[in-house]
Amino acid sequence: MASVTTKTGQVVDRSVLDSMLRRRLFYTPSFEIYGGVSGLYDYGPPGCAVLNNIVDLWRKHFVLEEDMLEVDCSMLTPHEILKTSGHVDKFADWMCKDPKTGEIFRADHLVEEVLESRLKGDKEARGQKVEVDEEKEAKKKKKVKQTKVVKLDDAVVKEYEEILAQIDNFDGPALEQIITKYDIRNPTTDGNLLPPVAFNLMFQTSIGPSSNMPGYLRPETAQGQFLNFQKLLEFNQQSMPFASASIGKSFRNEISPRAGLLRVREFLMAEIEHFVDPEGGKKHSRFEEVKDVEMTLLNRDIQLSGSTKTEQMTIGKAVEIGLVDNETLGYFLARIQQFLFKLGVDPKKLRFRQHMANEMAHYAADCWDAELQTSYGWIECVGCADRSAYDLTVHKNKTGAPLVVRETRAEPLRVEEWQIDLDKKKFGPRFKKDGKSVTAAIDALSQELREKLALDLEQTGKIEVEVEGVPTGKVELDKELIKIEKRTRVENVREYTPNVIEPSFGIGRILYSMIEQVYWSREGDEARGVLSFPPAIAPTKVLIVPLSTHSSFAPLVQRMTTKLRRMGVSNRVDDSSASIGKRYARNDELGTPFGVTVDFQSVKDNTFTLRDRDSTKQVRASEDEIAQAIKALVEGEETWEDVRKRLPEFTGQEVE
Amino acid sequence: MASVTTKTGQVVDRSVLDSMLRRRLFYTPSFEIYGGVSGLYDYGPPGCAVLNNIVDLWRKHFVLEEDMLEVDCSMLTPHEILKTSGHVDKFADWMCKDPKTGEIFRADHLVEEVLESRLKGDKEARGQKVEVDEEKEAKKKKKVKQTKVVKLDDAVVKEYEEILAQIDNFDGPALEQIITKYDIRNPTTDGNLLPPVAFNLMFQTSIGPSSNMPGYLRPETAQGQFLNFQKLLEFNQQSMPFASASIGKSFRNEISPRAGLLRVREFLMAEIEHFVDPEGGKKHSRFEEVKDVEMTLLNRDIQLSGSTKTEQMTIGKAVEIGLVDNETLGYFLARIQQFLFKLGVDPKKLRFRQHMANEMAHYAADCWDAELQTSYGWIECVGCADRSAYDLTVHKNKTGAPLVVRETRAEPLRVEEWQIDLDKKKFGPRFKKDGKSVTAAIDALSQELREKLALDLEQTGKIEVEVEGVPTGKVELDKELIKIEKRTRVENVREYTPNVIEPSFGIGRILYSMIEQVYWSREGDEARGVLSFPPAIAPTKVLIVPLSTHSSFAPLVQRMTTKLRRMGVSNRVDDSSASIGKRYARNDELGTPFGVTVDFQSVKDNTFTLRDRDSTKQVRASEDEIAQAIKALVEGEETWEDVRKRLPEFTGQEVE
Repeated sequence: MASVTTKTGQVVDRSVLDSMLRRRLFYTPSFEIYGGVSGLYDYGPPGCAVLNNIVDLWRKHFVLEEDMLEVDCSMLTPHEILKTSGHVDKFADWMCKDPKTGEIFRADHLVEEVLESRLKGDKEARGQKVEVDEEKEAKKKKKVKQTKVVKLDDAVVKEYEEILAQIDNFDGPALEQIITKYDIRNPTTDGNLLPPVAFNLMFQTSIGPSSNMPGYLRPETAQGQFLNFQKLLEFNQQSMPFASASIGKSFRNEISPRAGLLRVREFLMAEIEHFVDPEGGKKHSRFEEVKDVEMTLLNRDIQLSGSTKTEQMTIGKAVEIGLVDNETLGYFLARIQQFLFKLGVDPKKLRFRQHMANEMAHYAADCWDAELQTSYGWIECVGCADRSAYDLTVHKNKTGAPLVVRETRAEPLRVEEWQIDLDKKKFGPRFKKDGKSVTAAIDALSQELREKLALDLEQTGKIEVEVEGVPTGKVELDKELIKIEKRTRVENVREYTPNVIEPSFGIGRILYSMIEQVYWSREGDEARGVLSFPPAIAPTKVLIVPLSTHSSFAPLVQRMTTKLRRMGVSNRVDDSSASIGKRYARNDELGTPFGVTVDFQSVKDNTFTLRDRDSTKQVRASEDEIAQAIKALVEGEETWEDVRKRLPEFTGQEVE
Repeated sequence: MASVTTKTGQVVDRSVLDSMLRRRLFYTPSFEIYGGVSGLYDYGPPGCAVLNNIVDLWRKHFVLEEDMLEVDCSMLTPHEILKTSGHVDKFADWMCKDPKTGEIFRADHLVEEVLESRLKGDKEARGQKVEVDEEKEAKKKKKVKQTKVVKLDDAVVKEYEEILAQIDNFDGPALEQIITKYDIRNPTTDGNLLPPVAFNLMFQTSIGPSSNMPGYLRPETAQGQFLNFQKLLEFNQQSMPFASASIGKSFRNEISPRAGLLRVREFLMAEIEHFVDPEGGKKHSRFEEVKDVEMTLLNRDIQLSGSTKTEQMTIGKAVEIGLVDNETLGYFLARIQQFLFKLGVDPKKLRFRQHMANEMAHYAADCWDAELQTSYGWIECVGCADRSAYDLTVHKNKTGAPLVVRETRAEPLRVEEWQIDLDKKKFGPRFKKDGKSVTAAIDALSQELREKLALDLEQTGKIEVEVEGVPTGKVELDKELIKIEKRTRVENVREYTPNVIEPSFGIGRILYSMIEQVYWSREGDEARGVLSFPPAIAPTKVLIVPLSTHSSFAPLVQRMTTKLRRMGVSNRVDDSSASIGKRYARNDELGTPFGVTVDFQSVKDNTFTLRDRDSTKQVRASEDEIAQAIKALVEGEETWEDVRKRLPEFTGQEVE
């Protein structure tokens, strides 16, 4: 894996970044004083603020902008619902157990780890330069055997690379085959492993005091939205298409979580279920607005050929050539990209990857992931799946609830069809207890068969129909009992099950990946990290620093902080005795975009300096001008360049 | 129970309100198409919006206003933590099982139900008017035996009333006594019940694939905050006092949930943990700001005497006379009241009730509940507990983590004390394997005892010390081995475990109770319900209605909706063909505070009418003036009265 670099061209040193994020309490392992639990994290004040800001922006960008119907549904979910949705049977990963040590491995991760290690050993044997992932190395030093420096056959290298390119495409039996064929064992002990078995990833519990209602913690927010479809359609005054949306925690009992915030057992999701008529090509009324958006796409076929080469094209083009199936899917892919850019994501570190067939969730008909590049590789942060009519159909079939749209047709539909009349009076006495089975069998006859039977009946005066459940397996019917005629049926109402396009956001993954992408450090000093959050995302917008602890500064500081708070601009005062440079450095690490300095000049003429985090440039102006400029910057009405042009530059203090 | 009336003096008809709230999709039972699960609800779009608005206001009123450190911690919690916190052993309700039918009853609710029913039968027998709770009646018709009309002894009536006044004060054995003494049985079958047993209210699950880590869904957000105390103190640059805060779901596996949103198994909480030095009377620096706030208080002693009579007094007075223990507790009680008033709570329907001793949670030293009056009675919506140093102490003792504050003393503390020196060289050979026990026993000697022993030692040259774990239970020590002297120890650092004041908000209960309090119906028409949400809480701020579907209105409607959205004012257009009156009535039910009508006059001169939901009065002004007025109203800068005074009234359309 090639090294990932910051905007300023430095290689991202994850251990430095990680220690900064923990020191500043962006996040911390949950229950750490009890030894912690892998895959569970707490967000501290700055992390929690960034999380809230992402959610706010998401709500504005999607829910408010498109009048989506936001709902908040239960996490506890009874067994029956998740049995119907397919999660009880299919929401699983494959795990291998070492029968000697009792260790449990996630099968695909194990294959990945072992093959990557062998490829590295091969490179070393061939004398090639090897990129070192320090964290992985550190872990290996503790518990994994050192990479064996062994040269492989060229053909084997190619096979390994092809497996790794489509590692997400293998199911249990395929993984078992790979494990056997390439003799993959416990990397620590070299012991043999049992064949992979499926492990369901839902947390199980029991609802109520009598333990007769098993349930799970939801694995996604989607099911609650589907179950309420009828009510939401009613709330939307029967108008289609529409979208529901939900923001909330979901749960996934990972086999062996790793990679920090990227693979956790409890996570904040934001999901949209856009319900659309499957007829008419799933057009979208606002597609025109996004059709020229340039996207980086990695399609399914390229991946299956063992490559990860992306293409650049507009979403309009991608839909036109059928690479992206329809306008609605395309519209959301473009809107997802716009959202990610608002968060500060680097366009060069974003790609949309199409799922391969076996990789897709059991309910999906097509799926694209928005992936962000980080030091862990390309990370799936948003999924955008076409779930077709899968969910509404299975719940409708199970419960009988009409999870459908009924639409008055503009023009009544006239259907020519073969209809069957039965003489009910004679029918009962003739078939007695078999009557029901016979009627059901007749109702189920296809149009094709009806046409043939009509002919038979006319020619011979009787027909034979196969019926399950009667002794002979068939019955004879004559003209006295049955009539088959071609007639026209007029349909005034159209009934259909909507399809669902589902953009699904993992907020924690977005948060972490975005942080890696906005992180850099001041030239010449790796320890001086900066997080260049856009103002809307930054935990605190303004740092107010008096030049020293001199008492004349206090009233000015108080006035500025109150003024900004009244304007709705969150700010913090740092009146500690540390140097201005140190105080700014601390806030660079917290990603605070602007700083206001109160100095002796301020006391004289009520002017203040305003500092830009990224450039460390400063301007100086009156209290009101500075406050107004901050408001404009934070609300995105002006950029720093705008402000710098219209307000006089200040170069007095050394506050870089 | 006396009937509860609306602001306009109507009796609240809960069944009418409830059906309106469901029709407008404020909330709905979860999994309803699968038959539902009691105690689990989904919030639909308007309910979800109100919920989000309450949370926003909470965050501004508490977190931002007081620079609290907001965190977001895991819900999944390993067994060990909740064992230490006491929840595994004590977070339980008492339940009784009917051995014949298998039915399970929550013991205190059963006692309440049966005694209330008997008191009602007594009233009927005495020919007194009986208030009827329709929902309870409806339920009873289905499954409970009708009230028996039986006159009771006056003394028995008094006993029943006293039990009901302190029903929350009984533990399992006390409930068992009551059940036996008053022969309380299964109300449906009259069958005898088994004695009450404790049922733990936490949902249990298992973390990870190997099922060797049992865990629970958290019963409160507090524990995550306590476990992070050290890091939060560090983040706060070691400065005390400070508060952390958290908003998130918690879980409680209720035995038999009832009363809609008021008793649910999964609920949104907002909790503050304010960490304060236990010395110095728990003063609060901002108490001065709230000391004149008038409160309605119901103290512990009044309740124990069997009464529920409240007193009015300022919080300043309540703290002064020691009814409320300290300023910090008092400060938060006043701030809680201010918050509830912002939501639209009726001052006459709010009281603060002190917990009785047995009623308090296992960790609480004192506790007051903010209770809102609803048709279900007085409902606990906010708890404000003094948890003392309980939680930090138990976690510190269990893990050894220093969950303490270390403070450099302004003046070093000089402590005169009896110190003991042991001659280690002689000590080891003398006591051998008992050495450790002897040392521990000596270390544990009180100052009092040391003084006495010092005298003995001086007089007799030897002393006897009791030691657990040695054969004789005591050892003899002589001057060779031990020296006891009075000396002065200088302490430069003070170490203490902070106390915790915890305001804890049940957001769903607040939402429901507040809705009941802002609900009323238009005079003469019970079916025309109105929800008078304050603008900040209303799901949608403005309804825009064109007078008819005439095409000339469309561009004006579009301009107004875009203008308001840019100002950050959420609004909806209703351009359906229903009459203006009907469209406004629909939005009265949704609680939309303002309406803008677009009519033919608007097309001519670009003026619009603005309607106030509560008074149905209208004003008319230019597009800009109307938009500005709306912004001022929504942001709380102007009241409707202000706007009505400065803009011309309009009486043209009939839009009541």
